[in-house]
Amino acid sequence: MGRVDNRAAAEQLDREDELARFRAEFELPPGVLYLDGNSLGALPRRVRERVLRTLEHEWGEGLIGSWNAAGWISGPQRAGDKVAKLIGAGAGEVVVTDSTSVNLFKVLSVALQANSARRIIVSEKANFPTDLYVIDGVVKQLGGRHELLLIDSTDAALEAALEHRGGEIAAVVLTHIHYTTARIWDMARVTAAARAAGAMMVWDLSHSAGIFPLEVGGCNVDFAVGCGYKHLNAGPGAPAFVYVPRRLQERFTQPISGWMGDARPFEFRPDYAPAQGIDRYLSGPMAAIRRKSIALGELFVDLAGRNCEGLELASPREGARRGSHVSFRHPDSYPVMQALIEAGVVGDCRPPDLLRFGFAPLYIRYADVWDAVMKLAEVLGTRAWDQAQFRARKAVT
Amino acid sequence: MGRVDNRAAAEQLDREDELARFRAEFELPPGVLYLDGNSLGALPRRVRERVLRTLEHEWGEGLIGSWNAAGWISGPQRAGDKVAKLIGAGAGEVVVTDSTSVNLFKVLSVALQANSARRIIVSEKANFPTDLYVIDGVVKQLGGRHELLLIDSTDAALEAALEHRGGEIAAVVLTHIHYTTARIWDMARVTAAARAAGAMMVWDLSHSAGIFPLEVGGCNVDFAVGCGYKHLNAGPGAPAFVYVPRRLQERFTQPISGWMGDARPFEFRPDYAPAQGIDRYLSGPMAAIRRKSIALGELFVDLAGRNCEGLELASPREGARRGSHVSFRHPDSYPVMQALIEAGVVGDCRPPDLLRFGFAPLYIRYADVWDAVMKLAEVLGTRAWDQAQFRARKAVT
Repeated sequence: MGRVDNRAAAEQLDREDELARFRAEFELPPGVLYLDGNSLGALPRRVRERVLRTLEHEWGEGLIGSWNAAGWISGPQRAGDKVAKLIGAGAGEVVVTDSTSVNLFKVLSVALQANSARRIIVSEKANFPTDLYVIDGVVKQLGGRHELLLIDSTDAALEAALEHRGGEIAAVVLTHIHYTTARIWDMARVTAAARAAGAMMVWDLSHSAGIFPLEVGGCNVDFAVGCGYKHLNAGPGAPAFVYVPRRLQERFTQPISGWMGDARPFEFRPDYAPAQGIDRYLSGPMAAIRRKSIALGELFVDLAGRNCEGLELASPREGARRGSHVSFRHPDSYPVMQALIEAGVVGDCRPPDLLRFGFAPLYIRYADVWDAVMKLAEVLGTRAWDQAQFRARKAVT
Repeated sequence: MGRVDNRAAAEQLDREDELARFRAEFELPPGVLYLDGNSLGALPRRVRERVLRTLEHEWGEGLIGSWNAAGWISGPQRAGDKVAKLIGAGAGEVVVTDSTSVNLFKVLSVALQANSARRIIVSEKANFPTDLYVIDGVVKQLGGRHELLLIDSTDAALEAALEHRGGEIAAVVLTHIHYTTARIWDMARVTAAARAAGAMMVWDLSHSAGIFPLEVGGCNVDFAVGCGYKHLNAGPGAPAFVYVPRRLQERFTQPISGWMGDARPFEFRPDYAPAQGIDRYLSGPMAAIRRKSIALGELFVDLAGRNCEGLELASPREGARRGSHVSFRHPDSYPVMQALIEAGVVGDCRPPDLLRFGFAPLYIRYADVWDAVMKLAEVLGTRAWDQAQFRARKAVT
């Protein structure tokens, strides 16, 4: 990608974009540059029709008959098999159910049960807070006998922990793409190192699924969870997913063992055909998504660096080490984002001082990135954010 | 209610029905008598418009701004306050979140934490199986130190358990209206007895909420859970609810402690106004619902007794002791129900030999009950069910 010095150059990239046709699949409000698909994915156009079919035909007319006739009973597995293709899992290894937190509670409980002689759980200090809360909840529930070892988000810190305490570590729980910085852990290397030390490897893929080529099977991941409402575009309130490889499904039982058969993550039907290799079916489109994801982020970082004052990059500079959003530090991040939203560019803030911009390659154009940076430059240059109306507004939680 | 000997008499009851006007609020497929609202409530007409507003306006246009602008952030509490009015809880004591099983897992975990010196959990042998699975899951998670004492579903059995083992009982977990027989536990008396013995009282209200006048506050219930898709008509996949009285909210922490603030059942905002007495607001309509619920069941039992052969009543004969469905035993319950559904009357089966018919007073008419029993009599009289097509069909799970 050559240097982009004007909007026409960005428009040319859009004309050459192999993913350009997907933008029409989404409802996008006019006049808004939505750079927050990493927080809540935009509405796919076909959702309206599908939801109305469920409401009117399946619920309204079919009533309880729809458990079978409309396939409600196997919905978690069917949706799970679709997610499986996106994360490199096999058919029958993923179900869509519950929330990310509930799913993390389940798989961490199983991991600690599997490694009951060990007492340490490794995670990162800067992990998504609710993941740490869930870990804490599992530890308390199990009698407080485990120690939570929180490390810096660096390969060196993880290696040191594995080297010094490896024999005591029951589970390593990490978020693959960091929710603030978008830093990417090397899934293959980290998983191999954790497993070599005898620990169970648990990944939170909330910021990765649908935007980053994943091979949870190929990496021998033990468990993974993730949400449905970010890059999977499943909407507010959508259920989450949980991955358990076949090799572990029958060895352990998770603790919340009571819900309906159609939502039992560890009791997959024995008659599933293990469609070997099908997880590679999507590798082409997924690679294209990842390429554009990097390119959009790269363009944003480059343009912001040349046009915006007062920003400090908080994400890895190298695209290969960064997920699909870019974060910058700014001491007045909150009013800056308020002013920017007012100007039609939607990103979000994360405490204490981060501006976060997400790039959904299926519906964000290169020209959108150009326009967004120009708006940001204008807001910063005119100190538009330095007005009472933006400073006073209540924080979006 | 006088004896009903012909359809005209049933039609007269419909004309006098104080709840008749609510039927128009529901979408009901033509040609079907839907006596299964206790399994999945029918579609309220206003749902379509409300769902489309969420999809198109809140998600499609509002995107992440809808967390505040559309009030997503407080949805679990706002829906919870509505459920609270139906079960006799105060504002801020109910949230709508997760599944019934996950909520039962949470509250039972808290109950056992609250009563950590005691080791017995009392439930009923015939409890809804998933409730027993959840109890089993909590027990295993806590190290297998608890004993599950399963009693018969009788007052005498419960009294005996409390008398002989009372000092060891940490929690009593019962389903208020039984899912097969519709037998009703006396909530006030059972709760008082359990608490007098020092046990925490946990109720599953899945078959009660929305159909039976409840006073969880007045009865000093410790915890309650229930689903949204039966008599609350919230649709397939709807989240469940959990009740925790104010007196317990700050004393304990439930174990799945990590999900988003908007779905934390035990961290209610301190600025909720405790709207004293508002739970009685619905007592009028709720009493009318209960009266008609009893009358419809009574009519069904009476007409079936006089017109249908081979049925044995499996529910309490006395309306006051029965919830809003009626079950009969029949050795060929499954093909009988298949033939009946084919004839346009939708009930369901529960193993091993039960036919179950539910009465949703807001949309089921007396004349519907008349028609349903006449169809049932015809199916049984002609042995319509004794055909290969009905016997062979795969069971609805």
